Amino acid sequence: MAKELKNFTKRSDNYSQWYNELVVKADLAEQSAVRGCMVIKPYGYAIWEKMQRTLDDMFKATGHQNAYFPLLIPKSFLCREAEHVEGFAKECAVVTHYRLKNDPDGNGVVVDPEARLEEELIIRPTSETIIWNTYKNWIHSYRDLPILINQWANVMRWEMRTRMFLRTAEFLWQEGHTAHATREEAEAEARRMLEVYADFAENYMAVPVIKGVKSPNERFAGAVDTFTIEAMMQDGKALQSGTSHFLGQNFAKAFDVTYINKENKPEYVWATSWGVSTRLMGALIMTHSDDNGLVLPPHLAPIQVVIVPIYKDAEGLAKISERVDSIVSNLRAKGISVKYDDADNKRPGFKFADYEVKGVPVRLAIGARDLENGTVEVMRRDTLEKETLPLDGIEDTVVALLEDIQKNLLEKARKYREEMTTTADTYEEFKEKIEKGGFILAHWDGTPETEEKIKDETKATIRCIPFEGDMTPGVCMVTGKPSARRVIFARSY
Amino acid sequence: MAKELKNFTKRSDNYSQWYNELVVKADLAEQSAVRGCMVIKPYGYAIWEKMQRTLDDMFKATGHQNAYFPLLIPKSFLCREAEHVEGFAKECAVVTHYRLKNDPDGNGVVVDPEARLEEELIIRPTSETIIWNTYKNWIHSYRDLPILINQWANVMRWEMRTRMFLRTAEFLWQEGHTAHATREEAEAEARRMLEVYADFAENYMAVPVIKGVKSPNERFAGAVDTFTIEAMMQDGKALQSGTSHFLGQNFAKAFDVTYINKENKPEYVWATSWGVSTRLMGALIMTHSDDNGLVLPPHLAPIQVVIVPIYKDAEGLAKISERVDSIVSNLRAKGISVKYDDADNKRPGFKFADYEVKGVPVRLAIGARDLENGTVEVMRRDTLEKETLPLDGIEDTVVALLEDIQKNLLEKARKYREEMTTTADTYEEFKEKIEKGGFILAHWDGTPETEEKIKDETKATIRCIPFEGDMTPGVCMVTGKPSARRVIFARSY
Repeated sequence: MAKELKNFTKRSDNYSQWYNELVVKADLAEQSAVRGCMVIKPYGYAIWEKMQRTLDDMFKATGHQNAYFPLLIPKSFLCREAEHVEGFAKECAVVTHYRLKNDPDGNGVVVDPEARLEEELIIRPTSETIIWNTYKNWIHSYRDLPILINQWANVMRWEMRTRMFLRTAEFLWQEGHTAHATREEAEAEARRMLEVYADFAENYMAVPVIKGVKSPNERFAGAVDTFTIEAMMQDGKALQSGTSHFLGQNFAKAFDVTYINKENKPEYVWATSWGVSTRLMGALIMTHSDDNGLVLPPHLAPIQVVIVPIYKDAEGLAKISERVDSIVSNLRAKGISVKYDDADNKRPGFKFADYEVKGVPVRLAIGARDLENGTVEVMRRDTLEKETLPLDGIEDTVVALLEDIQKNLLEKARKYREEMTTTADTYEEFKEKIEKGGFILAHWDGTPETEEKIKDETKATIRCIPFEGDMTPGVCMVTGKPSARRVIFARSY
Repeated sequence: MAKELKNFTKRSDNYSQWYNELVVKADLAEQSAVRGCMVIKPYGYAIWEKMQRTLDDMFKATGHQNAYFPLLIPKSFLCREAEHVEGFAKECAVVTHYRLKNDPDGNGVVVDPEARLEEELIIRPTSETIIWNTYKNWIHSYRDLPILINQWANVMRWEMRTRMFLRTAEFLWQEGHTAHATREEAEAEARRMLEVYADFAENYMAVPVIKGVKSPNERFAGAVDTFTIEAMMQDGKALQSGTSHFLGQNFAKAFDVTYINKENKPEYVWATSWGVSTRLMGALIMTHSDDNGLVLPPHLAPIQVVIVPIYKDAEGLAKISERVDSIVSNLRAKGISVKYDDADNKRPGFKFADYEVKGVPVRLAIGARDLENGTVEVMRRDTLEKETLPLDGIEDTVVALLEDIQKNLLEKARKYREEMTTTADTYEEFKEKIEKGGFILAHWDGTPETEEKIKDETKATIRCIPFEGDMTPGVCMVTGKPSARRVIFARSY
């Protein structure tokens, strides 16, 4: 395997192939027998679990509770909100029957034509419709508001072109669905959850993101406004990493959800929804990893430190293990996840390569001579730098190093993004620059038509109208019409 | 609402209706718009989350890792294992199409007949088939074994008669799927996981269970042996609460999964699977709750202690709150989940009734006179006993009380089960006794035909052949043929 790992495609040769290989070689996921669906392997799932746990804590800290709604949605529900059905009802998995029967020709089982559903059911592509149909019964008075609910679930969208983690037919996600008495409160909620996502992206994933609002073309089907965090991958393409939607009263109207306000008058309820998915795994991989494999930020690494003994015989191993045992328990007491790999059926070189490809942030290697000298070899995965350091106090060194790696990854990614962010004042300049990738700040006249034209001609879309940055007006690079401010264009995943 | 709660159906009047009402009034779950599927509400989901977290820790402590496999299973996979398809392929949700289109008649959306799948996909009723199809690629040598994987997932079985938590079309569960080099190791794993379930049932749910093996009639479709934990509900009916299956080489053969053993020869892999589901919520509710509502064991209660202030004005509340604040932080420091309900839009009586119906184990009520006297009123939900106790040191009192409640609930349930467990030596005696409910220990000749006859005539099934207890042989109460030992009969959920 160590050798196999060396046969990695380089990012500079074929970024896309490098990604696909890495997902498999780092043991994160693999294609399944079902078109477009992946198997998330234990190591990949362990990273997702860390993401889940962290996000879940953040949602609870902001007052949300978890609940669970049905997987299947009656077809008619999807049609209630006009834009929503356009966006979601087209490519989806449709359940039409509820029974199989033995094939009369003796060939396994076949669908029983008599068990046809009266109304087809759709595997949820997102749950606004089933949830708002439920909220109708929960909301009567202003006293019932706000409702702050999150759901961890699987969803399904019948994507034609799939890539592991980035775009799969089935994926895992969380979807928050909140109901509010006022427009202001709902808008504030949508913005607050975008801040939670940005905080998570930057401080746990070490992925710098730009916060902003989507143009109408890129808006969630049924939303009044879609807020987004946009990250930049190492190939200069953008990745939408999380979205939070202000839904206005669209779903309340579609499902007739009103409440009696303090003045005793009925009013439609205001809504938000927000979600991040296993797609974050793709963002994590593509932001930090290198030609040697995965690079994980310490805050999300299932194994933060691995310790590999270098020994000749059982006696040598015993001596090392004795010293290592106290390091392991000291590190665990500090909340560090550490693995001591003393397996004797693999050589140190194999182990080094394996943990490297799996992105373990810090590796300690310790041999007989180290014991004598009171030293240990420390390797940090982000820079691949090796150093020989004193064994005494190594626990504090490791804790500091992990924080340094976490910080360094974010800074490195931010620096790369800054290098890859540029402006364009003319459409010619834009077309030239977009070929090199990255974010381009340019003026746009605010119309869907112009955005569409740019997309058709350059494959670039407006990633967002950022909340921060240059607010100077100008003229649209394509039409010359007035532009309120520059927006961010990029090619994207 | 307090008043409404009083209109509860009594268990003695109609146990089944009492259960349905309790699920709704305690805010645990409700029926959804999709036939047979429920909405798990935040309070119910919070209990499920505590169950999940505890079980997940137990699985990890026994060496298992989580992973995720696809929701949809190709129809042909189900047919590979002959018994499995008989058991699971009949009542299931079948995905036949992957697209909707606008109705040509302008009436919403319809299934696009051109988007018919070549092979139908089934929403997983259980995942043995898709997982063993995956394991085929993971297992080559004895070095790849054992594989110890668990999945948290939703599954679907198109049940005709559903009841919330106990039997729903979609339900949440975990399914462990392990692969081993030897029969012994696989059998030991299946037994070990049954022990984990029994430990969880007794020490967290406070539900005493009988461990045993299922008769062939009640075995999992595709298993060599099914181990089970059986609990008794307050109406004397049995509830199968968790099962662990020794699958032999059935799935390895069906999916051609072999490994090269140490002697360099190919051998089929041995398997287990094991699962518990949101059905455990039903067991929890029906074991402990009473005519006043839910009763929760402290180890699984989302709120373990609620503190309700009794006050006349803001000043009075401020004084109470000052004292309560330190109790709250002291209890939290001890790992106790505590809620201080100082909401001023509900009267204490309403709060009392609400937390009672929600099963909060301990309630503290504190008023102006208590402050003066240095006392607090303590109510324990299991016995509904009230006591006035000193405020000083109340934190230790509460911690001890929670443990006492946990213990008391288990003892009470065990005592009830013992009272409701009897023997029958003749079929006449059996038929008479089964009408009163409970477990009946009786001799059986070991044949599926006799079990079937008993089931048809009395609605009772063999819950299990217990691992422990009376091992004396005898004669079958129905046929007079030899019986190896008494087995447990009951009517069941």
